[in-house]
Amino acid sequence: MKRIFEVDPWKIVTHQFNPEDKRLQESMTAIGNDYMGMRGNFEEGYSADSLQGTYLAGVWFPDKTRVGWWKNGYPEYFGKTPNAPSFIGLGITVNGEKIDLAKVKFSDFYLSLDMHQGLLTRSFVYEGKDTKVKFEFRRFLHIVQKEAALIEVKATVLSGRAKIDFDSTLDGTVVNEDSNYNEHFWLSLGENEDDRTIQVKTKENPYEVPQFTVLLKESLRHDGKIVTGDVTSSEAKLSEKLSVELDEGQSYELEKDVIVVTSRDVDDKDQLAVANELMTKLQNKSFEENLVDHEATWNKRWQTSDVQIDGDPAAQQGIRFNILQLFMTYYGEDARLNVGPKGFTGEKYGGATYWDTEAYIVPMYLAVTKPSVTRALLQYRHDQLPGAYHNAKQQGLPGALFPMVTFNGIECHNEWEITFEEIHRNADIPHAIAMYTEYTGDDSYVKNEGMDVLVGTARFWAARVHWSKWRNKYVMHGVTGPNEYENNVNNNWFTNTMARWLLQYTLKRLPLATAEAKARVKVTDEEKAKWQDIVDKMYLPEDKDLGIFLQQDDFLDKDIRPVSEIEDQRPINQNWSWDKILRSPFIKQADVLQGIYFLNDQYTKEQKEKNFDFYEPLTVHESSLSPCIHSILAAELGKQEKAVELYERTARLDLDNYNNDTVDGLHITSMSGSWLAIVQGFAGMRYNDGKLSFKPFLPKKWDRYSFKINYRGRLLSIEMSDQAKITLISGEPIDVKVYDQDVHLREGESKCLKD
Amino acid sequence: MKRIFEVDPWKIVTHQFNPEDKRLQESMTAIGNDYMGMRGNFEEGYSADSLQGTYLAGVWFPDKTRVGWWKNGYPEYFGKTPNAPSFIGLGITVNGEKIDLAKVKFSDFYLSLDMHQGLLTRSFVYEGKDTKVKFEFRRFLHIVQKEAALIEVKATVLSGRAKIDFDSTLDGTVVNEDSNYNEHFWLSLGENEDDRTIQVKTKENPYEVPQFTVLLKESLRHDGKIVTGDVTSSEAKLSEKLSVELDEGQSYELEKDVIVVTSRDVDDKDQLAVANELMTKLQNKSFEENLVDHEATWNKRWQTSDVQIDGDPAAQQGIRFNILQLFMTYYGEDARLNVGPKGFTGEKYGGATYWDTEAYIVPMYLAVTKPSVTRALLQYRHDQLPGAYHNAKQQGLPGALFPMVTFNGIECHNEWEITFEEIHRNADIPHAIAMYTEYTGDDSYVKNEGMDVLVGTARFWAARVHWSKWRNKYVMHGVTGPNEYENNVNNNWFTNTMARWLLQYTLKRLPLATAEAKARVKVTDEEKAKWQDIVDKMYLPEDKDLGIFLQQDDFLDKDIRPVSEIEDQRPINQNWSWDKILRSPFIKQADVLQGIYFLNDQYTKEQKEKNFDFYEPLTVHESSLSPCIHSILAAELGKQEKAVELYERTARLDLDNYNNDTVDGLHITSMSGSWLAIVQGFAGMRYNDGKLSFKPFLPKKWDRYSFKINYRGRLLSIEMSDQAKITLISGEPIDVKVYDQDVHLREGESKCLKD
Repeated sequence: MKRIFEVDPWKIVTHQFNPEDKRLQESMTAIGNDYMGMRGNFEEGYSADSLQGTYLAGVWFPDKTRVGWWKNGYPEYFGKTPNAPSFIGLGITVNGEKIDLAKVKFSDFYLSLDMHQGLLTRSFVYEGKDTKVKFEFRRFLHIVQKEAALIEVKATVLSGRAKIDFDSTLDGTVVNEDSNYNEHFWLSLGENEDDRTIQVKTKENPYEVPQFTVLLKESLRHDGKIVTGDVTSSEAKLSEKLSVELDEGQSYELEKDVIVVTSRDVDDKDQLAVANELMTKLQNKSFEENLVDHEATWNKRWQTSDVQIDGDPAAQQGIRFNILQLFMTYYGEDARLNVGPKGFTGEKYGGATYWDTEAYIVPMYLAVTKPSVTRALLQYRHDQLPGAYHNAKQQGLPGALFPMVTFNGIECHNEWEITFEEIHRNADIPHAIAMYTEYTGDDSYVKNEGMDVLVGTARFWAARVHWSKWRNKYVMHGVTGPNEYENNVNNNWFTNTMARWLLQYTLKRLPLATAEAKARVKVTDEEKAKWQDIVDKMYLPEDKDLGIFLQQDDFLDKDIRPVSEIEDQRPINQNWSWDKILRSPFIKQADVLQGIYFLNDQYTKEQKEKNFDFYEPLTVHESSLSPCIHSILAAELGKQEKAVELYERTARLDLDNYNNDTVDGLHITSMSGSWLAIVQGFAGMRYNDGKLSFKPFLPKKWDRYSFKINYRGRLLSIEMSDQAKITLISGEPIDVKVYDQDVHLREGESKCLKD
Repeated sequence: MKRIFEVDPWKIVTHQFNPEDKRLQESMTAIGNDYMGMRGNFEEGYSADSLQGTYLAGVWFPDKTRVGWWKNGYPEYFGKTPNAPSFIGLGITVNGEKIDLAKVKFSDFYLSLDMHQGLLTRSFVYEGKDTKVKFEFRRFLHIVQKEAALIEVKATVLSGRAKIDFDSTLDGTVVNEDSNYNEHFWLSLGENEDDRTIQVKTKENPYEVPQFTVLLKESLRHDGKIVTGDVTSSEAKLSEKLSVELDEGQSYELEKDVIVVTSRDVDDKDQLAVANELMTKLQNKSFEENLVDHEATWNKRWQTSDVQIDGDPAAQQGIRFNILQLFMTYYGEDARLNVGPKGFTGEKYGGATYWDTEAYIVPMYLAVTKPSVTRALLQYRHDQLPGAYHNAKQQGLPGALFPMVTFNGIECHNEWEITFEEIHRNADIPHAIAMYTEYTGDDSYVKNEGMDVLVGTARFWAARVHWSKWRNKYVMHGVTGPNEYENNVNNNWFTNTMARWLLQYTLKRLPLATAEAKARVKVTDEEKAKWQDIVDKMYLPEDKDLGIFLQQDDFLDKDIRPVSEIEDQRPINQNWSWDKILRSPFIKQADVLQGIYFLNDQYTKEQKEKNFDFYEPLTVHESSLSPCIHSILAAELGKQEKAVELYERTARLDLDNYNNDTVDGLHITSMSGSWLAIVQGFAGMRYNDGKLSFKPFLPKKWDRYSFKINYRGRLLSIEMSDQAKITLISGEPIDVKVYDQDVHLREGESKCLKD
């Protein structure tokens, strides 16, 4: 655990600058606007250790799979988000000395990310030999005009005289740091000094993945008016230089406006004209006016999604940070996109779509955004069904196999133990259809497009199991469960359980499908009988003496001991060799417990308790996806202290760098976990059988918490202090259950209840 | 199965040239002299599909490990033998047309590898518009003067007139084809046109692996006298051009002599002088005289190692081909070297040392070469113990872990399921110490250096097992057995058995060690007690009902069915996805049966029979190491037909391209398998408890076979026809057993016996 920012309910703020924490600072002050994003790099440049990163949603590159030993079925490429052409650059020289916080003397450092609207503010006083200059930066990515980035710097001479040279740059000569061996992904299409643009294109690939073109345009303003400097360019680079001379007490403010357009939206040949137009539009308003527009949209988002926590500012800061970062990554406004595990904050995971979206994002977004946002996420997978059929075929199996990692539906990750084996995703992803249907009450998706997904995946599962004469059961070999600290295991309880669920749910929903859907999927009676047989005879390993489900065959043969015995060796993924991790009993993230979370209403309290008590002590939570699931189950089981401990781990995973890996970027897809821990955990929200219910408790050290949810056209607020207060803010009357008591609410009405 | 060469007892010969079989032809006509080797490429060049390859023993390059996702403990590099600078080039143009068998018209193609001495002969008639020219090539790598390669071409004009331009080249601008992404490994150190040399150096690496320097020199002779042409050069390339004009009936012979010296033997700065000296020495004799010297040495090798088979020319050809290729790869004359799985015939496997050496090469070399050759192989591992300690440390374990793949003792392969898990090697490699000691009767190694190896590996094993409270046994998780079609399994019977054997053997040998060895290894009483406890309580999975050992936990849970059901899908490693292979019951190579082979005297005939009958039908033999082990066990169990079938598969694996992969190169380390199948299989040779014994049978379709062995200072011959005849050719009198009958032999004496 390491905390480098101060606790504040609405700010990520620090007055310190420690070079050793530079990457961590950059991750934590990353900003985005669902269209693009960037790490918290410094405008003026920084020559010591740093991870420079700018990323464009949906712009990716298929990087050739390079392994020492090829395995049949490997995807040909590893998909990754290339570091995008950088537009942050605003170099500064004072009296000939380049401002570089790795080298110059400075004081009064201040850095703050305002969570109301994702405005990044930074200032410091440069202390030259005879001169002191205060520099103040502001930066935001426009949430209304998504193609726009606005950067402002103000220099104030505190003492002496200063000749200040500014150098505004666009730079397409960037590389990725993570496993791309310093190769360049971008080819220059030319620089335009008059228009102050560079245009680049991702390099060719042999995989029929489109080459993306990106055009960047910059323009400088002073005092709201365009100013022009000396422009020079070289391959994929452009620079505009401007100088001012200031006496003591004088100040000068310079604004760098940037427009970024990509071939996802604008044809290559139109990009220049469109960028020019967008720049004009942007510059019709001042920096402040643009910021007001930007802030207004953010306010609207917060109105329905803010979670308030009184009495624990660290918890409050954590959840707001998570909500902000989530919404900066994805707010459902472009259905072609999805939620990359690191969002726009780092390179790892390639930026693509994982099962995280369905398992962790969907249950939160169902409640904090419009149903159409979740439906777009479901549609995204439906659109990618051809890729899923391709993936199954690669493994020699029928049906559809959703990928572990993808941009276009085709698997683009290439570790066999993940790609070929971590197939539980193929039930987790369709499981979101059930969640959507259950939460929204809208069954139009499951009856139609959803049926293509269910039947496609059902066919995969029915072929992936095999009959074991030895056990007289259907078994499933060679899988990796959510606990990726085991690979290639047999009969992972979670995978077997979810595969069985998928078949059962498909059989249940199939009769209700539309005629068109039935005609498309053409399920035969023989198939249905086979699926039912698998449902009836699936092997689900358990130990009756211990009263637990077994994570996989022979789990008990391990050297079982609690994590508390190895505290000094954590995180094990950084301190242990891979084989030692695999052999150990330690669990990366919920596995059996993930199943109990997903299919929560199918298990008794005793089953939940025994499994929780057995598995939680073995769990190292080295996946960001882990603590929230445990927190929710702990809350359900009345283990309130444990629930809070794990909530804190979820909510402040990045802010406190729990797993010592936030330098690589933020854990975006797990950020919903803190919301889930409060809403499904502390407040005990469930929505089974068309009935919303709550069982709230208040963590000991909190005074109060409250949140709002959208539910079937209504807006409800739940507030918990010494009692639970539920309010129907808007919408038709509704019946809910609180502490198992029936509550009827009309619009505007509140009810207070105690357990 | 595909046979492209004719059957001949002493030749690999063909009168056909099929471009589609070019790579196969190149593998099969590879030649080597233990110092260097080359594939059967064409001197004049060939523009269609081909794998050009020249390799230098002990010259390697550490290629950065490149994976999408790093795992702790991965070796930093993958070691590989880079394609060496090529000296084969002798381009030919006739009346302006370049001779290229992919393009020109030709007839009377002939290609032959004479197995007496590894002389490659090729001829064809070029049919130009108005000219016919016969070209005859001869090529060999000098077995006495190892740095020398001799190439001869003779052109005879059959009709018309011919202006023939020769272009003798040296070329350092070569790349590898296999997983190095077309990168160049060689940097030019300069070309010397006067001396006709190029000198190159492997590029820098950050792993403290020495950069190797190689100098090549060529010189042309005609009629035994040096001739000079026009020399030109470019970076890492040299060319010497010469023209002749010939009338119909005239012929011209040109000899290209080559010297190759490397920094393994000669300092960079001395290489030119040494190469000049060696060339002078070589050219003191004519091509024919050099060939006579070369042949004399080969004759000596054959005298003690030839295996004769009457009545089955294909079987005869197979075993001679294997012995030739083995001896061309390694004859024990340079103790720094070892036996790469593809020798000098291809790129795959990197050219490094595998456990194959100890498991497959040692038991043959013990009998066909001097004991010092095997002892050198043992010493090679002892010299690499520091690397083995490093490897164990990488995994967080004490003791020594011999690598799966290495050049210097440090693991240099990087699939976790192999590197981290296929650890049975760490008992198989020390097992050669027991074989050496038992066969030679020389215990000086095991008492001294051998003890370092035994104790180092024992310490690894004692830490790698863990105590299972559930089973009340020591267990071993997360391993890959010899059957690499399973990964990350628990309690692989073979690995558990061999680990137990190693501990037991170490405990047995330790009291007999020298005082110095004991002082070095410092084994405590506590350690000994722990090792004994593991020996006593090791879990060895078995199924008592079936009477078999279980390859691993839950093996019976698989969808068990014989290979005969999937004949149309073989080889599965080319037709199935990796995950399908892993889940299947099909076995790549002997696993349980490998253990029964290694520790042959510990199992009853019934145990052998039941395990053989269970596992052999599940085995696809897609490792070249597989059929011989099965052949030997089949022979022991009286399954003579099966033994012969598997012998043929072993002996002609490459000649008949059984696994459809000989295009990549020959399976060198398994070539001893055919010898083992005859000697340990058909002739039933054993050498337990200091007593040599035989139980020969004659395969039905053979008339006779015979072989010779060195045994404890004696040379014996065994000949089997309608009866067994054993002869002590030289050495002290000896008592052996034949068909369980005691036989006493004096020098020069033969005895004949029947079963």
